[in-house]
Amino acid sequence: MYQFTNDYSYLAHPRIIKALEKYSDEHNIAYGLDKHSFSASNYIKDIFDVPNASIHYLAGGTQTNMVLISSAIKHYEGVIAANSGHINVHETAAIEGSGHKIITVNGKDGKVYPNDIKEVMELNNNEHMVKPALVFISNSTEIGTIYTRKELLDLREVCDEYGLYLYLDGARLGSALTSKECDYEPSFLGHVLDAFYIGGTKNGFLFGEALVIVNKQLQKDFRYAIKNKGAMLAKGYAVGIQFEEAFKDGLYFDIAKATNEVADYLKDKLAISSKEQPTNQIFIKLDNKKAQEVINKFGTEMWNKGKNESEIRIVISFMTTKKDVDELIEFLK
Amino acid sequence: MYQFTNDYSYLAHPRIIKALEKYSDEHNIAYGLDKHSFSASNYIKDIFDVPNASIHYLAGGTQTNMVLISSAIKHYEGVIAANSGHINVHETAAIEGSGHKIITVNGKDGKVYPNDIKEVMELNNNEHMVKPALVFISNSTEIGTIYTRKELLDLREVCDEYGLYLYLDGARLGSALTSKECDYEPSFLGHVLDAFYIGGTKNGFLFGEALVIVNKQLQKDFRYAIKNKGAMLAKGYAVGIQFEEAFKDGLYFDIAKATNEVADYLKDKLAISSKEQPTNQIFIKLDNKKAQEVINKFGTEMWNKGKNESEIRIVISFMTTKKDVDELIEFLK
Amino acid sequence: MYQFTNDYSYLAHPRIIKALEKYSDEHNIAYGLDKHSFSASNYIKDIFDVPNASIHYLAGGTQTNMVLISSAIKHYEGVIAANSGHINVHETAAIEGSGHKIITVNGKDGKVYPNDIKEVMELNNNEHMVKPALVFISNSTEIGTIYTRKELLDLREVCDEYGLYLYLDGARLGSALTSKECDYEPSFLGHVLDAFYIGGTKNGFLFGEALVIVNKQLQKDFRYAIKNKGAMLAKGYAVGIQFEEAFKDGLYFDIAKATNEVADYLKDKLAISSKEQPTNQIFIKLDNKKAQEVINKFGTEMWNKGKNESEIRIVISFMTTKKDVDELIEFLK
Amino acid sequence: MYQFTNDYSYLAHPRIIKALEKYSDEHNIAYGLDKHSFSASNYIKDIFDVPNASIHYLAGGTQTNMVLISSAIKHYEGVIAANSGHINVHETAAIEGSGHKIITVNGKDGKVYPNDIKEVMELNNNEHMVKPALVFISNSTEIGTIYTRKELLDLREVCDEYGLYLYLDGARLGSALTSKECDYEPSFLGHVLDAFYIGGTKNGFLFGEALVIVNKQLQKDFRYAIKNKGAMLAKGYAVGIQFEEAFKDGLYFDIAKATNEVADYLKDKLAISSKEQPTNQIFIKLDNKKAQEVINKFGTEMWNKGKNESEIRIVISFMTTKKDVDELIEFLK
Repeated sequence: MYQFTNDYSYLAHPRIIKALEKYSDEHNIAYGLDKHSFSASNYIKDIFDVPNASIHYLAGGTQTNMVLISSAIKHYEGVIAANSGHINVHETAAIEGSGHKIITVNGKDGKVYPNDIKEVMELNNNEHMVKPALVFISNSTEIGTIYTRKELLDLREVCDEYGLYLYLDGARLGSALTSKECDYEPSFLGHVLDAFYIGGTKNGFLFGEALVIVNKQLQKDFRYAIKNKGAMLAKGYAVGIQFEEAFKDGLYFDIAKATNEVADYLKDKLAISSKEQPTNQIFIKLDNKKAQEVINKFGTEMWNKGKNESEIRIVISFMTTKKDVDELIEFLK
Repeated sequence: MYQFTNDYSYLAHPRIIKALEKYSDEHNIAYGLDKHSFSASNYIKDIFDVPNASIHYLAGGTQTNMVLISSAIKHYEGVIAANSGHINVHETAAIEGSGHKIITVNGKDGKVYPNDIKEVMELNNNEHMVKPALVFISNSTEIGTIYTRKELLDLREVCDEYGLYLYLDGARLGSALTSKECDYEPSFLGHVLDAFYIGGTKNGFLFGEALVIVNKQLQKDFRYAIKNKGAMLAKGYAVGIQFEEAFKDGLYFDIAKATNEVADYLKDKLAISSKEQPTNQIFIKLDNKKAQEVINKFGTEMWNKGKNESEIRIVISFMTTKKDVDELIEFLK
Repeated sequence: MYQFTNDYSYLAHPRIIKALEKYSDEHNIAYGLDKHSFSASNYIKDIFDVPNASIHYLAGGTQTNMVLISSAIKHYEGVIAANSGHINVHETAAIEGSGHKIITVNGKDGKVYPNDIKEVMELNNNEHMVKPALVFISNSTEIGTIYTRKELLDLREVCDEYGLYLYLDGARLGSALTSKECDYEPSFLGHVLDAFYIGGTKNGFLFGEALVIVNKQLQKDFRYAIKNKGAMLAKGYAVGIQFEEAFKDGLYFDIAKATNEVADYLKDKLAISSKEQPTNQIFIKLDNKKAQEVINKFGTEMWNKGKNESEIRIVISFMTTKKDVDELIEFLK
Repeated sequence: MYQFTNDYSYLAHPRIIKALEKYSDEHNIAYGLDKHSFSASNYIKDIFDVPNASIHYLAGGTQTNMVLISSAIKHYEGVIAANSGHINVHETAAIEGSGHKIITVNGKDGKVYPNDIKEVMELNNNEHMVKPALVFISNSTEIGTIYTRKELLDLREVCDEYGLYLYLDGARLGSALTSKECDYEPSFLGHVLDAFYIGGTKNGFLFGEALVIVNKQLQKDFRYAIKNKGAMLAKGYAVGIQFEEAFKDGLYFDIAKATNEVADYLKDKLAISSKEQPTNQIFIKLDNKKAQEVINKFGTEMWNKGKNESEIRIVISFMTTKKDVDELIEFLK
């Protein structure tokens, strides 16, 4: 039975594995200074329209968030994030552990809004309080929603007004950008963000994330920062090869799009609007007995346990087929 | 015109200054190993009934919270505190800056309740989330309220159930313990807390706080921890002398009691119940114009600014007299 | 032309790649709780005779050192290491960056000796100095030497005497244990160390290190510590699969042994004693002109640049053949 | 019997105590924003010729070093210091504990020289090594020596060449500047340093150090940095009053000069050259029996214990009189 637990429980897309195999006996410069990493970076610069970005390949998302944030801000500075933000909930205090306070806002639908930021800025206005310095958002968010073009432009504006960095966690950026509901191209992101990462792990890679630093101020000495957090991979080319493969002909987006299509197929069957659940994470409510059965059989995650009814999370991955979905639907009936 | 800004804007109680003068040409062992510090600690052990506590003298409250918490817990562990808690709001991320997440609960009246803790413990139940390890409370709280005997016993019970340390910030402990509304003796605290500090700075001292570590597990190598955070005073006896003077014959509580009496005098005039505002911080609402006038003339602090009406904070200190209060009352009429 | 730069410039041993390919469409539990990781751990427990160890799979060596050390000791505690130790020289202050002082000793041949430790312990004897808490050694060392059975037993003894943890960085543990000069079995290490890691990256893996925590005190909450440092891999099974493959039938040691044989072949040709250079890193002195030519042609690293003569480092990897060595020898003539 | 242990075992100079007494019932703005602190800063700006410096008052030397360094540099950056430097030896890893590596040089006479810095800069030249960013010196040094005008100019030059900050720990700056051997005025320091602190604690103050930040780049948000490390004093004016008193008419230098005169008196008697031991710390060698007797009777510190002969440290403080010295001399005969 296919398991709908998450999008990182299957090793990698066949083309990713093949690419690694192909270069397995080739000499490469270590620590991310190899030709594959450079080539991947060139593709990314083109696609996201960030010709002057510096791009770094790291092993995982929590690590990427931690290295970027701890390099960008001081210990008396803080990060504004949604209550539901990954850094606030599911990173075992990696951000605070490296010395940085997260200032949470309630947000809505897992997103941060300009008004949230304004309120924080008005409150935190003296040296006895943490100084906000960076806004953390994720796209898609932890609950599968995505930002609109207008929302991102508005965030950029308020960040500029207050001198804040705008950083986007793109663990599921593929799914966000290929969603039917997404109203911008990848290149738009390069114009509104100071930094973002393009998630590989949850989009069919063996492992790896590409951190794209657009803002010059954040680029300085960044390789030192990576090494200092134990995040520099000796065989950096192992990630470079994957990103090169994924971006040389659009594989990255193909994987995400195919995944979204299977997700949309499921949503159709369940009469869920793509507007409300635009990406590959699908949340449904079931009575508790049924919820537990689905969890047991399909490995889905309990999201919000209620007294009688509970919300479970179904995740579609690069491995999920419509046939897998049909079996799930059948069981849900 | 007397200034009601806070309780640390006047240097020190005359007896404290006199005590320092008295010992000004005496040789003392440095770094807190002097006879005055030992004598002060003996008084404290008696009064709080903590014969096996280790007691350390530090310069300020934020520092004391930071040294204790960062020594007590690991970076993947967190502190449960009220949203309004001093460590969360007014310490410029000193706790997070030293690597520890604060898990905030809404609480009520500035206090943390057992149910708040239970909810946190049920939610934070796996290694992808911060592991709660210590509960931070303050007494009096940041909004002047105090814990009852029953409330502290209940907190102790839930902390024992979940294996959490219970730590009390006593920046205004004098005011709390000498409040008419307080239903326990100092010695009670020694029995329900793992650690607490007795605030000197806000109770007529030149500077200095006494950190009382009751729990043996937290005592190990603590002098190393103090020095490591830059918090060990070369002339530790300068604080030891003040605490010795304050506890040898009850001066500490006399100062607090006298302060509370002036505060009660003000509350009477304003028809404020001591039940609701039991200590030396008094919050009143005024229309915005009047509020601003009081702030300008008496140095009080704006607490919550509203559209038409605002809340201001009036603090009674060891220097405030009933005559000072009369002038304020006159102006408020 | 084969490049003798280091042992991490070629992607992976064919069997490692094959193993990944084999499991590419299998569902696995994330975060290192999968069956391959468990199976690998069982092999490791057997081979190193550590039935009660806890074993964790991480991405790289600097990260592994940082996570282990920062979890094991407090901020006022320090690590004793050789001046030449990797953590002291080539980790961009990852240990200090996470809050821990390294106390360096001169050592000899890249090794730490009991007398070095005794001297440190006698000097650092009060709370104004860092408190030594852990001894860091590497095997093979950064200059290719290995510890003898006697040396390790002596270190264990002095660590026990002073209450210090003994931790071994095994980035090149394969090469050390399969050296002709090694006078102990893998299981011996399990009996004298508190913790060690078995390096995969430099022994033919795509990436990955296995951290073996023998001492119960160091095991507590270690998965929290990993996640808190951003070091928990979502697809932990990607490392588990590699270690399972490497230890199920001795591949790990076969790779190391084969590598050492090529290294010995080179040493024979150069009349270098295996006693002095027992593993896969070989240091030779050449006049500066020749040294530069070798560097240019074979990618070897400059180790110590002198006025007329320089020392270069030649590293044999799992990819190096005797034919590659022959070409190098030819050029050196 | 007078105790020659150190220069912080007697509470404070009478004029310092008197000044505190004088202002004991005056209202002052908290957190160092009071008129006394501003007045003190104006005197300091004049004397050290640093009209654009920002000046902050902290409680102790280790704290001051920690706050300045941790604010000035990143975690992947390091501090160059002499092996004997206070931050390296006697601060219980406060610098590393806050995340910064100290790169030690052997120096000579407790001082750092341009060549030491050059060697470090040539070695630490890539992102796998800590990036040197700040040079820490002390004046007088931990062994009582002082820098010459020429030496400081040379350090400035090399720091400019490599883009390093030059920071001076002035725990005993008074003694250095009033030494007969000192060949510059206070104002010279303001022209060659990026930051320095003027020690109060060891020069007759109750407590307190004045941190003078000359370099604009280091000034930004510094009050946030202070608070974030728990180092902002609520009653900052308690230190401001002391510095105002000490600098309004030269008391600071008078105390230091008088102390140096007593030290010179002792040196004369012992035929110690002021060139070699220019300040208030005097090191003498005695046979072990005699050394122990002096330690027991006069509280001096053992500095280097030898087999037969040992070096002890005699410290002259603001309280020491020539009569006290006579008694010591008598005993030494």
